[in-house]
Amino acid sequence: MKIALCQINPAIGALSANAAKILDFAQKAHDLGAHLAVFPELSLTGYPPRDLLEKKEFVEKSLQTLHRVHQKTPLPIIVGFVDFNRHPIGKPLHNAAGLLVPGESRLQVQHKTLLPSYDVFDETRYFEPGQKIQCMNVNGKKIGVLICEDSWAEELLWEKKQYHTNPMEVLSQANPDFYINISASPYSLSWFHKRVDILSKSVRTFKKPLLYVNQVGGNDQLIFDGASLALNGHGDIVSQGKSFKEDMVFFDLETQTGEGLSQYPQEIESCYQALQCGLSDYVSKCGFKKVVLGLSGGIDSALVATLACDTLGPQNVLALFLPSPFTSRDSFEDSKAMTINLNIQMYTISIDELFKIYRKSLEPLFKDEPFNTTEENIQARIRGTLLMALSNKWGHLLLSTGNKSELAMGYCTLYGDMSGGLSILGDCPKTLVYALSKWRNSKKDKPIPQRIIDKPPSAELRPNQKDEDSLPPYSVLDPILKAYVEDHASGAQMMAMGYEAALVKKIVKIVDLNEYKRFQSAPTLRITTKAFGMGRRFPIAQGYTQEEKG
Amino acid sequence: MKIALCQINPAIGALSANAAKILDFAQKAHDLGAHLAVFPELSLTGYPPRDLLEKKEFVEKSLQTLHRVHQKTPLPIIVGFVDFNRHPIGKPLHNAAGLLVPGESRLQVQHKTLLPSYDVFDETRYFEPGQKIQCMNVNGKKIGVLICEDSWAEELLWEKKQYHTNPMEVLSQANPDFYINISASPYSLSWFHKRVDILSKSVRTFKKPLLYVNQVGGNDQLIFDGASLALNGHGDIVSQGKSFKEDMVFFDLETQTGEGLSQYPQEIESCYQALQCGLSDYVSKCGFKKVVLGLSGGIDSALVATLACDTLGPQNVLALFLPSPFTSRDSFEDSKAMTINLNIQMYTISIDELFKIYRKSLEPLFKDEPFNTTEENIQARIRGTLLMALSNKWGHLLLSTGNKSELAMGYCTLYGDMSGGLSILGDCPKTLVYALSKWRNSKKDKPIPQRIIDKPPSAELRPNQKDEDSLPPYSVLDPILKAYVEDHASGAQMMAMGYEAALVKKIVKIVDLNEYKRFQSAPTLRITTKAFGMGRRFPIAQGYTQEEKG
Repeated sequence: MKIALCQINPAIGALSANAAKILDFAQKAHDLGAHLAVFPELSLTGYPPRDLLEKKEFVEKSLQTLHRVHQKTPLPIIVGFVDFNRHPIGKPLHNAAGLLVPGESRLQVQHKTLLPSYDVFDETRYFEPGQKIQCMNVNGKKIGVLICEDSWAEELLWEKKQYHTNPMEVLSQANPDFYINISASPYSLSWFHKRVDILSKSVRTFKKPLLYVNQVGGNDQLIFDGASLALNGHGDIVSQGKSFKEDMVFFDLETQTGEGLSQYPQEIESCYQALQCGLSDYVSKCGFKKVVLGLSGGIDSALVATLACDTLGPQNVLALFLPSPFTSRDSFEDSKAMTINLNIQMYTISIDELFKIYRKSLEPLFKDEPFNTTEENIQARIRGTLLMALSNKWGHLLLSTGNKSELAMGYCTLYGDMSGGLSILGDCPKTLVYALSKWRNSKKDKPIPQRIIDKPPSAELRPNQKDEDSLPPYSVLDPILKAYVEDHASGAQMMAMGYEAALVKKIVKIVDLNEYKRFQSAPTLRITTKAFGMGRRFPIAQGYTQEEKG
Repeated sequence: MKIALCQINPAIGALSANAAKILDFAQKAHDLGAHLAVFPELSLTGYPPRDLLEKKEFVEKSLQTLHRVHQKTPLPIIVGFVDFNRHPIGKPLHNAAGLLVPGESRLQVQHKTLLPSYDVFDETRYFEPGQKIQCMNVNGKKIGVLICEDSWAEELLWEKKQYHTNPMEVLSQANPDFYINISASPYSLSWFHKRVDILSKSVRTFKKPLLYVNQVGGNDQLIFDGASLALNGHGDIVSQGKSFKEDMVFFDLETQTGEGLSQYPQEIESCYQALQCGLSDYVSKCGFKKVVLGLSGGIDSALVATLACDTLGPQNVLALFLPSPFTSRDSFEDSKAMTINLNIQMYTISIDELFKIYRKSLEPLFKDEPFNTTEENIQARIRGTLLMALSNKWGHLLLSTGNKSELAMGYCTLYGDMSGGLSILGDCPKTLVYALSKWRNSKKDKPIPQRIIDKPPSAELRPNQKDEDSLPPYSVLDPILKAYVEDHASGAQMMAMGYEAALVKKIVKIVDLNEYKRFQSAPTLRITTKAFGMGRRFPIAQGYTQEEKG
């Protein structure tokens, strides 16, 4: 029995298009001799459909679409779909896997048992957990079907064991011939290797092959890496799908061998590819063709320009250089050099006069109050307004270029440099921005001028300004931010890591104070285990500080 | 036995301050002869603490604070707090009610059984449901203690019955002398009456008094109305706390009578008070004193100015009038008249020159492309930049004045009129804005010039512009938006309501397309059952349309 692992990139809610894609892959799988084709979690609706699930009409149409797919599929397929909960009590829906066999009118269905409700996941908002766990049957084989989180019962994942049931253990009692997990598991740095560890550990426990089929593609903040896996009964990877691209690989049940074995990229490369995937899909799924961004001469906008160019092609990337009186000659030269390297168009508009008129307009109010962040913010907002004008006039998507360290510290201007439809680096700490830039520059075209990488970072919003005037060095700041934002470390824990109490206290306070800015930030591509945005939900008006004595 | 219902306004996370407030109320209750004082759900941390709950240190400190309160309370109190889940499996926390009796070292604890996970509620993200449901004992009386949602098992609330257990029914088997529900139930229009219906229905079923103690105050988007209730064994209200204000009312168990009986305001008045409460608390809990807003001469900014003035006092409200070439003389006169009525300061800054320079700066790019929404947006963004400059320089909170109809239709400018720290009317449809203004003007000071109420609404961003050039009349638009946004009505359902297919289709498409704008909007005070923001989670990049054939 030959099984096709079909990692597709569905668009959220695009039922007909997703159905067509499923049937297209199914046909190819059939043509290549497969007896079963397997698709990711919620493959018909795309994952996550979020509050589209609250529209009853949407769920009804998705079930009609499932029926059409069932009628047309040339071979048995397993598809993720949204099912109604037919029990009179509970949440209205189930997250379901359906086995659709041509000629059999009834579906075999398994409902997801373990529903993630943490970080970016809200499944208990919509779904009732499955009650029955039982095998499916096709071609005389018995399959234990799991849906994503159903495989994460494993204790080593959790500080405290989350789930009362281990669905794989329950399934194992029926002695299936193999297991399938259909998944939509978002990328984060190093998560792939953890995922492999857990899946192989499961296989070593239950001693049967496990086919893991993961969604691929970007949906708003979330990036799904694909990299589907076929593990033989010993837990070895015998086939693996591409990363961040649609793919189909195969597993032969009798010989326990695979067809198609991609390698997962190294960490920095995987991050670069993830950002490309997130950018590319946001642009295309929102119906854009071209993007625009502001080049400052700094590393963040340089990296975003390069990423955009690598992803969308130079003809679809437009740069604006918007100098103020504080912009250095170097910044202009470096930006210019880079646009030549990348072969993208750059317009220059000076913001001097606008800045002057703003100051003049405000003079009757501000009188002789000294220049401070207000005037810095005005410059950033002039740039935001010019970039948005271009975006509005020509329909280009404005990319926001700020990084995670800035966003954490509020070292950025709301409605200024934070403007944009998508934040590319908003989950990349500054030190990672450097690592990504250096990695990209290790390719022979070396697009980013070395001076951009070497010079001390500056916002250039006042004379001789350097980031380090306001912030600790990024090599110190970033690990503290990681501990605090990603790992919820306490003050005591951070001091135990060797950081000064006063510094930790200051950083924590600044991060907390800037919740209001992040609340209004553009959607940010998520590449760590805790990105700002949908997966991090802090109150703005709140009084907790680490000094609270308890 | 005399019981005090203490509806307090905690600040999220402010453990010491909340503890002090609890002890203060407890002392007053004791002085007034009470034998038990009851506080709202999660009264120690404030509701909702959101991801503060992911900080273990925060939970530990809140438990230490609870211990301090226990040592100091002069009478038995029931307090809402966060408990650790001591079972080895499951979510790490419980949403708990604790009975703290002076001199008894052990707490009596009840964990919340029904955890809401819908709309603005994310309780399954943090909490494990309680397993045991049992009565508490104090003063020789047996009390059945419920926590908020525990009383909403009632079927008539749900299209599909949500919960498998009815905690009140379970408690009733132990035959308690009375019930207490500690709650944090956010305001929405008409929800108070539904709440009363459900609570009275429960009392009529279980035939024992029920004391309902609700949080009061605004926390970011959410506004809690208080209006705590004591229902005697027949389901009659014998005492009721104030709306939107801290209060203490009493119930005497033996005589089944109350002390303190406020009336709930009529719907429009309740909405006005809710907005005041949300604004007042956001300002004070974020540490602001003063606010600034742009006056346009239109009804939205007029109402916000009036609300701000009524709430914070005229000395704390600053208005900017920012005319462009398209601003009418009427707009100036009306704004001026209103600031005189309200006794607030107004500065005028013309945006003519800035607008000209922006256009000149962009001319090399735009050449002779015609004036369109790009140029309208530039005007709005100039105003946003000026208002934010003032906010930055003087530390005033900028209030965003847009309404829900605009936000739904994207008839507003991101980084322009959408700028601000808090959106006051973002959940008020335009027709409600009129109703609120007329209600406020029915008071004898009549602050809003009648012409503002009478004239056709206009953004004044191009010559002779009227909202109705781009939008259907609000009397038609608002009911369609309510059906679509609040009730998730399908196209067919909206047509059955009597609306034209083409109009419904157009509106639905525009609402969906503008998800990206709302993603970056300021936190919006919630006054309907479905506000934009934390309780409504739609994907941006998505392909579902009501034309999808299924």
